[in-house]
Amino acid sequence: MVHINHHYLKLKAGYLFPEIGRRVTAFAQANPQAKIIRLGIGDVTEPLPPAIIQAMHGAVDDMARRETFKGYGPEQGYAFLREPIAQHDFAARGVDVSPDEIFISDGSKCDSGNILDILGDGNRIAISDPVYPVYVDTNVMAGRTGPADTSGRFEGLVYLPGNEANNFVPDLPSEHVDLIYLCYPNNPTGTVATRETLKQWVDYARAHHSLILFDAAYEAYISDPSIPHSIYEIDGAKDVAIEFRSFSKSIGFTGVRCGLTVVPKQLTGTTPTGETVSLHQLWNRRQSTKFNGASYVVQRGAAAAYTDDGRAQMRGLIDFYMTNAKLLREGLQRAGMKVFGGVNAPYVWLKTPNNLSSWDFFDRLLSKAHLVGTPGSGFGAAGEGYFRLSAFNSRQNVEEALERIQAVI
Amino acid sequence: MVHINHHYLKLKAGYLFPEIGRRVTAFAQANPQAKIIRLGIGDVTEPLPPAIIQAMHGAVDDMARRETFKGYGPEQGYAFLREPIAQHDFAARGVDVSPDEIFISDGSKCDSGNILDILGDGNRIAISDPVYPVYVDTNVMAGRTGPADTSGRFEGLVYLPGNEANNFVPDLPSEHVDLIYLCYPNNPTGTVATRETLKQWVDYARAHHSLILFDAAYEAYISDPSIPHSIYEIDGAKDVAIEFRSFSKSIGFTGVRCGLTVVPKQLTGTTPTGETVSLHQLWNRRQSTKFNGASYVVQRGAAAAYTDDGRAQMRGLIDFYMTNAKLLREGLQRAGMKVFGGVNAPYVWLKTPNNLSSWDFFDRLLSKAHLVGTPGSGFGAAGEGYFRLSAFNSRQNVEEALERIQAVI
Repeated sequence: MVHINHHYLKLKAGYLFPEIGRRVTAFAQANPQAKIIRLGIGDVTEPLPPAIIQAMHGAVDDMARRETFKGYGPEQGYAFLREPIAQHDFAARGVDVSPDEIFISDGSKCDSGNILDILGDGNRIAISDPVYPVYVDTNVMAGRTGPADTSGRFEGLVYLPGNEANNFVPDLPSEHVDLIYLCYPNNPTGTVATRETLKQWVDYARAHHSLILFDAAYEAYISDPSIPHSIYEIDGAKDVAIEFRSFSKSIGFTGVRCGLTVVPKQLTGTTPTGETVSLHQLWNRRQSTKFNGASYVVQRGAAAAYTDDGRAQMRGLIDFYMTNAKLLREGLQRAGMKVFGGVNAPYVWLKTPNNLSSWDFFDRLLSKAHLVGTPGSGFGAAGEGYFRLSAFNSRQNVEEALERIQAVI
Repeated sequence: MVHINHHYLKLKAGYLFPEIGRRVTAFAQANPQAKIIRLGIGDVTEPLPPAIIQAMHGAVDDMARRETFKGYGPEQGYAFLREPIAQHDFAARGVDVSPDEIFISDGSKCDSGNILDILGDGNRIAISDPVYPVYVDTNVMAGRTGPADTSGRFEGLVYLPGNEANNFVPDLPSEHVDLIYLCYPNNPTGTVATRETLKQWVDYARAHHSLILFDAAYEAYISDPSIPHSIYEIDGAKDVAIEFRSFSKSIGFTGVRCGLTVVPKQLTGTTPTGETVSLHQLWNRRQSTKFNGASYVVQRGAAAAYTDDGRAQMRGLIDFYMTNAKLLREGLQRAGMKVFGGVNAPYVWLKTPNNLSSWDFFDRLLSKAHLVGTPGSGFGAAGEGYFRLSAFNSRQNVEEALERIQAVI
């Protein structure tokens, strides 16, 4: 019989969000009259901006005429999208990233998992905790860890705990690591890394010849002008970091699917025999062989985010969600809860009341308030006792959610 | 320094199609006046059918209004697409495939590479030769082979040669194998497998507890009513086969990106300790963790292929390309060439004249006739001395290409 990848069996339960989906579906079936408000999965709710819609219609029309029809596109993405990204997301912030260091994909979740394809066994891997579960799960699936312990931590990973003492910005590892996952603005805690913090990480990576995988999916939500949007704003970072970005949250593309990964040309890794190899070339080969480019229609939509109209409309969308975040943050604080995030990120991270476990608080909010959030423990052992609420919803639902929370805690 | 996946270094040259692209670009830059006709990469040229265009515009409009906006979709695909696939592609041919055995993706190339994620080391892998290069390359990249020999064959793989004697339908392996790649209608040779041939493979797989990876990307081009479109038309195949399908060639989605993979629920594999595990569950976990679903707009477009209008328009598109294939096949035969395929597949596979090597014939056709084809050796060692021409082009270009070939051979 064919041999399976048995490392999958080390994964403990279902992936966090499908598990939430199962519990919510079960509750909804048992309580069909309940009006459930979902602040759980970080999924956007507002329509795409008009400039994006217009560009996508235009792209569909291109596909209707032989003269403008597009077949296979470049696996790396179209220049019409890579160039404005280089200009607006990087050059405008003083960062030199060339268009051919930018790889367009169908989403940052895919890229942050697929990047392991080009990395080898034997790396010492550090992952902040709590964090987006895909980093740990994809390492487990790729056989880069041992089994999990009773707290859900996997043997072989170096966990970097975030907690109230360090404001959920982990300290540097006390040992040597080869690969470091960072996510700022952080999912789930909504905290950010200052320039000084990022500089410490880049300095560490340079000293240890480590590679940083920097997830900047939420950079568009940064409101504090002193906070870097890209790790490449730190001198020397292009020698040590790959950066992931997404159009999911900035222009509402969670269902449209577009992301990008920056792999600087000077980045290198090593073979078991000590040969130095370009990571840019490896990723290019991976994408050319196992991917066929993001949809033309989608890339045209994403490119419209860089027009004047698109930028203004994107800003309006982000401001809308960030007003929700502010309402949530301040409302929960008024209710006496301990709250993090919600200022430079669309997530509010709260300490559960009465030291309830994350899943107990989830079940309680769902059953008593018909409200869905995300258990902090789903993001790692250090998230136990915390809970994430997302600002992605209508104003009315956010306001009603706050009233319901205040009524049940 | 971070360790890379050194297996990538075993790959010999660039992936076939980028290499063709490089040679064509170099020629075009040196000969800017040349009117190059491309029958190389199997990329469609005709616009999307009107029913698909209309559905995609409708889906873009859905994204413009809060009431119909779609965020994250199911990682496995929307029921509005999985259900008509189960009905029209399978039930209508007497095959019982349930919608939840169908996983929608952004393309069959991705799936046929990603499937290795859920399979383990230690499988004996058989791959027909010549064939779509992604099967071999992704196994090399995943470390499932040794190095290549001088003919480009990788140690550890069992190559199943197709040749004129077996009409490019390989014989069963003479040894035990665990994993078998089959592609019918075949890319690149355009040959098909009869029901009897497929039954032999299914019987082999059942006897050996092997898994067949069956690539049916070109099934829509089958014109002979006796030829199976799905391997599941063979009794017992659901116990031993995964099937890949694509919307790229049927409705022209090479730039739109949509494919699907069928993983029957009864399929199993084994762990090193002999435990039996469901491949459906593993693939579901893989897709949930490393993929976020195909674009909503794209899935709506694909679903329109199953409406009455969509089906009629798709048939028209396929008939158009198959008339091209017939013209190519018959024209080359008249010119005295030995030709395969072109009847149940949009590819014509020809023996190079004067025993030229595949790449020599490529260079000759490019420089003398300004015509791009695909060297047979790019599909495997057994393809050396052959050449693939694609029927994906305008009628005028196909006719002109034929005239040019006849003038230079």
